[in-house]
Amino acid sequence: MTSRDPAREDLPELGVGLVGYAFMGAAHSHAWRTAGRFFNLPMSVRMRALCGRSRERVAAAASRLGWSSYETDWKQLLARDDIQLVDVCTPGGSHAEIAIAALAAGKHVICEKPLANTVAEARAMASAARSAAGRGIRSMVGFNYRRLPAATFARDLVAAGKLGTIRHVRAHYLQDWIVDPEFPLVWRLRAEEAGSGALGDIGTHIIDLTQFITGQHITGVSGLTETFVKDRPLPAESPGLSAAAGAAGRGLVTVDDAALFLARFDDGAVATFEATRFATGRKNGLQIEVNGDRGSLQFDVERLNELQYLDATEDPVMHGFRRIMVTEPSHPYAAAWWPPGHALGYEHSFIHQVKDLVEAVANGGDLAPSFEDGLQVQLVLDAVQRSAASRGEWTVVEGSGL
Amino acid sequence: MTSRDPAREDLPELGVGLVGYAFMGAAHSHAWRTAGRFFNLPMSVRMRALCGRSRERVAAAASRLGWSSYETDWKQLLARDDIQLVDVCTPGGSHAEIAIAALAAGKHVICEKPLANTVAEARAMASAARSAAGRGIRSMVGFNYRRLPAATFARDLVAAGKLGTIRHVRAHYLQDWIVDPEFPLVWRLRAEEAGSGALGDIGTHIIDLTQFITGQHITGVSGLTETFVKDRPLPAESPGLSAAAGAAGRGLVTVDDAALFLARFDDGAVATFEATRFATGRKNGLQIEVNGDRGSLQFDVERLNELQYLDATEDPVMHGFRRIMVTEPSHPYAAAWWPPGHALGYEHSFIHQVKDLVEAVANGGDLAPSFEDGLQVQLVLDAVQRSAASRGEWTVVEGSGL
Amino acid sequence: MTSRDPAREDLPELGVGLVGYAFMGAAHSHAWRTAGRFFNLPMSVRMRALCGRSRERVAAAASRLGWSSYETDWKQLLARDDIQLVDVCTPGGSHAEIAIAALAAGKHVICEKPLANTVAEARAMASAARSAAGRGIRSMVGFNYRRLPAATFARDLVAAGKLGTIRHVRAHYLQDWIVDPEFPLVWRLRAEEAGSGALGDIGTHIIDLTQFITGQHITGVSGLTETFVKDRPLPAESPGLSAAAGAAGRGLVTVDDAALFLARFDDGAVATFEATRFATGRKNGLQIEVNGDRGSLQFDVERLNELQYLDATEDPVMHGFRRIMVTEPSHPYAAAWWPPGHALGYEHSFIHQVKDLVEAVANGGDLAPSFEDGLQVQLVLDAVQRSAASRGEWTVVEGSGL
Amino acid sequence: MTSRDPAREDLPELGVGLVGYAFMGAAHSHAWRTAGRFFNLPMSVRMRALCGRSRERVAAAASRLGWSSYETDWKQLLARDDIQLVDVCTPGGSHAEIAIAALAAGKHVICEKPLANTVAEARAMASAARSAAGRGIRSMVGFNYRRLPAATFARDLVAAGKLGTIRHVRAHYLQDWIVDPEFPLVWRLRAEEAGSGALGDIGTHIIDLTQFITGQHITGVSGLTETFVKDRPLPAESPGLSAAAGAAGRGLVTVDDAALFLARFDDGAVATFEATRFATGRKNGLQIEVNGDRGSLQFDVERLNELQYLDATEDPVMHGFRRIMVTEPSHPYAAAWWPPGHALGYEHSFIHQVKDLVEAVANGGDLAPSFEDGLQVQLVLDAVQRSAASRGEWTVVEGSGL
Repeated sequence: MTSRDPAREDLPELGVGLVGYAFMGAAHSHAWRTAGRFFNLPMSVRMRALCGRSRERVAAAASRLGWSSYETDWKQLLARDDIQLVDVCTPGGSHAEIAIAALAAGKHVICEKPLANTVAEARAMASAARSAAGRGIRSMVGFNYRRLPAATFARDLVAAGKLGTIRHVRAHYLQDWIVDPEFPLVWRLRAEEAGSGALGDIGTHIIDLTQFITGQHITGVSGLTETFVKDRPLPAESPGLSAAAGAAGRGLVTVDDAALFLARFDDGAVATFEATRFATGRKNGLQIEVNGDRGSLQFDVERLNELQYLDATEDPVMHGFRRIMVTEPSHPYAAAWWPPGHALGYEHSFIHQVKDLVEAVANGGDLAPSFEDGLQVQLVLDAVQRSAASRGEWTVVEGSGL
Repeated sequence: MTSRDPAREDLPELGVGLVGYAFMGAAHSHAWRTAGRFFNLPMSVRMRALCGRSRERVAAAASRLGWSSYETDWKQLLARDDIQLVDVCTPGGSHAEIAIAALAAGKHVICEKPLANTVAEARAMASAARSAAGRGIRSMVGFNYRRLPAATFARDLVAAGKLGTIRHVRAHYLQDWIVDPEFPLVWRLRAEEAGSGALGDIGTHIIDLTQFITGQHITGVSGLTETFVKDRPLPAESPGLSAAAGAAGRGLVTVDDAALFLARFDDGAVATFEATRFATGRKNGLQIEVNGDRGSLQFDVERLNELQYLDATEDPVMHGFRRIMVTEPSHPYAAAWWPPGHALGYEHSFIHQVKDLVEAVANGGDLAPSFEDGLQVQLVLDAVQRSAASRGEWTVVEGSGL
Repeated sequence: MTSRDPAREDLPELGVGLVGYAFMGAAHSHAWRTAGRFFNLPMSVRMRALCGRSRERVAAAASRLGWSSYETDWKQLLARDDIQLVDVCTPGGSHAEIAIAALAAGKHVICEKPLANTVAEARAMASAARSAAGRGIRSMVGFNYRRLPAATFARDLVAAGKLGTIRHVRAHYLQDWIVDPEFPLVWRLRAEEAGSGALGDIGTHIIDLTQFITGQHITGVSGLTETFVKDRPLPAESPGLSAAAGAAGRGLVTVDDAALFLARFDDGAVATFEATRFATGRKNGLQIEVNGDRGSLQFDVERLNELQYLDATEDPVMHGFRRIMVTEPSHPYAAAWWPPGHALGYEHSFIHQVKDLVEAVANGGDLAPSFEDGLQVQLVLDAVQRSAASRGEWTVVEGSGL
Repeated sequence: MTSRDPAREDLPELGVGLVGYAFMGAAHSHAWRTAGRFFNLPMSVRMRALCGRSRERVAAAASRLGWSSYETDWKQLLARDDIQLVDVCTPGGSHAEIAIAALAAGKHVICEKPLANTVAEARAMASAARSAAGRGIRSMVGFNYRRLPAATFARDLVAAGKLGTIRHVRAHYLQDWIVDPEFPLVWRLRAEEAGSGALGDIGTHIIDLTQFITGQHITGVSGLTETFVKDRPLPAESPGLSAAAGAAGRGLVTVDDAALFLARFDDGAVATFEATRFATGRKNGLQIEVNGDRGSLQFDVERLNELQYLDATEDPVMHGFRRIMVTEPSHPYAAAWWPPGHALGYEHSFIHQVKDLVEAVANGGDLAPSFEDGLQVQLVLDAVQRSAASRGEWTVVEGSGL
């Protein structure tokens, strides 16, 4: 019998268009393909079109990634009636233009992080999102790590008071893919396209994630940035992260290789942050520790199924960081997957993001992280860069009420 | 433009039918849906039909899991011309009948582990597979853990001589889902359907995996089995792992809760094996350590992206187990996925299984684990059970040449 | 002012004599020197004499290790009136003769493990100890690992019911010091002096430790032993663990390199045990895991300040092995030492052994492990060896009541 | 025979006097008692006198800790001819007066860290030490962690070029003993006696240790300090770390609870530092990671026998942090102790300190860390405090040549 699920026939359709088809495009496509297979989504997702500039490449990518059609101009994508949601996976420099236009065209928007390359762009986007919200249009910025079960569970524990008053946050995002000075000058190493370096690319993740988990905002920072390797070989071409060095000489690296900053949160906690691409041996070392007066948490994305938790309200004789496998049916998102102890991976964060996005489009309700949240992260970035430019001087995050 | 990939248009089609739609059915379906999205498969996979006994359920599952149609009788499935490969995900007791019929019908077959509930069944299946192979029909047994990148990489290191002569194997598969004596008597706890308990369900995985990694076979064993909880509440119904206790009284547990055995491998290594569902706190603790005279390996499925390796040929001052994140492009299967350090999950083992299976169907070449391999694992199981029944007496594994 | 502690002047003296001055002699000497510096002992320990066969060596060792005098004949040591306690640190083959004579001479005795090389010797020693106890003479066997804070704390947790009914024990003692086939034939590799190999040397530790922690006895076993390297170069000389190969040809290894066994405990738990000197990369890997129906414990001597504990009575959402630093003042023995988090080492187990021994000599009360306990461990060893000699046949431990 | 070691009879004597008998006094006394038992010292250490203000207490402590006599006035101690070396274990505020007088009296001096409470004091001490050095008098500051085998081995690896150019240092010293706001106002929480709080007490250790391991100096910092709990109950009395709250009301905490700073090293590395007593669950969490372009190191004092090392010059397929048990005979200091894998503890750092100190007194040669090194650490502290006082402004470390 031809397979049809009568119960699902009545679901409203959600036509999706995605702009970009590199690393993030592949991750988002997988999420769009998969979310409805494991979660009971309230809408039927239709992967209508993939958009990219190179006809040949986008056609091949669309076929491979499961999109029914392709476009070579994002404005065409926005003009299509069969698309209600636009997913923006381009480099940061084009986020504002595409997302604002999409919102104006009445499309729901999910936009990859960082929200934009500048505060001005991010502010315009947040403004557009607020305005669109009044018309029932949803928007979201893609801080996917929030939606790893362990990260959401960490947030839940803090929200339930398990940590008490938070005193310390330690957050590192450690990678090592450009330690070699002959690694080429890919687009992520040029300010024109990437806005900033480690700070914007991975620093934004730990800014968002620590604020998400603690439920607090960063109010001020003291920062330092460094570019260890000043110039690099020009790449032949630069699609995505991987690129071979070309024969065309060398160019200047115009972003930070590493950014470090001290911070204060609005409820009194102090913090150290570090984002770097020079932490030899750390491949994707997003590490967070939070200490409160009633307990502590520790999380490492390289072991993303685990959350370390210490309950300080017990007798000291029993104190100890416990390694919780966040794979029980009662853990966030986990019931949809495998039995306890069966690991999820990086890509599941995107699947959970799609799930929450589709539910919000269908049902309303809060949808975070919003463009407003994305702007606030941008304001922290901006404060770090301004502080670093003025010899570490303490710099208040704009809008933090200080 | 409608999405078409001219380069893929010419791919031969591979029509697939899957029998069973519980835990394994969902995992296999995900793999069939996904493999071609990340790997360049030499055939175009078509998910033709899902088969199950309950029309209502199988129809819903087919829709949800991405199958174009459904069948309620596996014989109908075998009769279909548009299906060239049958994937058997039913409980072990029906494997032989279905798989042998499928092979006879000229279908390629992948069959979940354990290959069968008895040696006789497994032997018939291996015989059918050998015969079918002569007609170009492929078959494979689903020991999926082999295809986690860390497990394949472990095998590669041993094969490259990095461990030298192997002296010790330690293998545990530790779960804890039936520690509670009120957990109901699901099908996995009854010999009629499951064949054996922890031994057949998870013990088979570590038997296969240690033999795969070491490249050796188990020649003899001394075993012990135990059923800690003798009777349990009858379940209302038992689809998959999770089941609520029913009101219908209690029934006898007729399988082992735990199985322990000592073993020897054919190249002189000695081993301890343990499979249990009573290891409180271990959710999916498949742990293997191998010691050779030139190095050692350690692997734990709860941290499946990591392989611990120690090189004993270095100066002792530098000795240490190193934690290799098996996520580099040069690691098995990893180039198809995310950048280094971005974790894969349990389900990827099934995706890699599909990749290798489809390649073997298209191109020929070795395809392991074969039904012969599955039979050999069954012979080890049988030896353990016979040894346990005769007070631990050393029992030679049939066919091991001893 | 000359230092005198009036409060301590009145303490009764305890004159100690130690036989042997290799590895264990040094460890015991350190304990005798140090225990009274950190614990308020009820007696004043006087390190009267060290005894060894070579006058030159024992004289140098006595001076270095802090003994006031030396003897070259242990019978002379026993004849001395100023010695009330004899510490036996010789190889196992001489334990029985020295310890029995010491008890007969009215000396308290602590004897290194294994208690003896044979069951007959151990039985005679236990008998002598029972008889001496009637005359107020104390005796103890040196299973020092019991007195690591984490091991004692593990026992306390089990005794307090934190683990409930115990289902599984997993115990490995993994070393790698003779992987190299050119490592010489030291005394520990010859049955005449060492009794057995890995089994007696380190297997005894895990037999004792698991019985201590669980509060249960092993009732039966199924065993396997292996000698991977059959002959080795004769050593020039063999004091202690380290020895250079001599020029005198090769000799047969007459003990086991590795011993593996399955076991049952008297309250229903099943167990795997492994003792080996061929676990490449494991230097002193004494690893124990205990699973009960209410919780689990894990302990590794390579991280001896830590105990892993899982409380299964909590909501599964919070389950996780917690790493307890066993360094709080409320942990066993820990208040005498440094602030929390400041690690103790291997040698502290001996210091705690001295503390408990001296307290028992002064105050009476239970003193464990007794020679009776040592004999029982010997009976387990014997059962393992008999089982291994009869192809793994299940072998009841003598005296276990089965 | 009375024990005498003729070979040692000729050793010159080194008479030692120790001032202070709390936590550090006990640790140092153990080291003085023990060093010569495990190492072949070139001098015969004589523990002549312990000095403290309370006659009753110092007398008891001298007896317990193994000192032949006691003094109640450190000036008396300095006047004694039988003392050639003075060990200063008092709170920081009295270091300068005692140490300078001792040097003037021709005594060798070891002084606990931090060298002093102020830069001025430290400068005077360094000057006195330089002057004394001309007269053959040695001096040393007690940064004991350097002499853990893993820390010294880390330094050796860096010095051998195993890390290449160093890019990042991450250093935390995390404790949690005053999280409770009712913990009393002990001397360590008052600036008058302790100089500073977490910064001076434990921050100094990570400043020294990272400079020691990298072989580089900190040139500038951007700092932040915080006192979370502003006032606390006055203690009844405050000997050492442990103190019960008294009935006498509350007093102001006049030191930092936590200090965080960013730093640059003179060869271009950037760093984050954090010292805190509010890291709930971290008992003695001294954690250091160093990333160079050829390798990385990680060290945690809670697992002080281990060093994590990653060799980035190997094929990426083999990259991984390896856990080196720093207990091989070829590791620093380790040959004097137990076989491989047998853990050392916190106290061994002090024993190794005594060994190196006595050898330097006997033989001359470099002795580090010198008072000059202690002054330099003080200058870093001072820069952190000045930066924190001026809103994080980048502050050059005096004397760093910038």
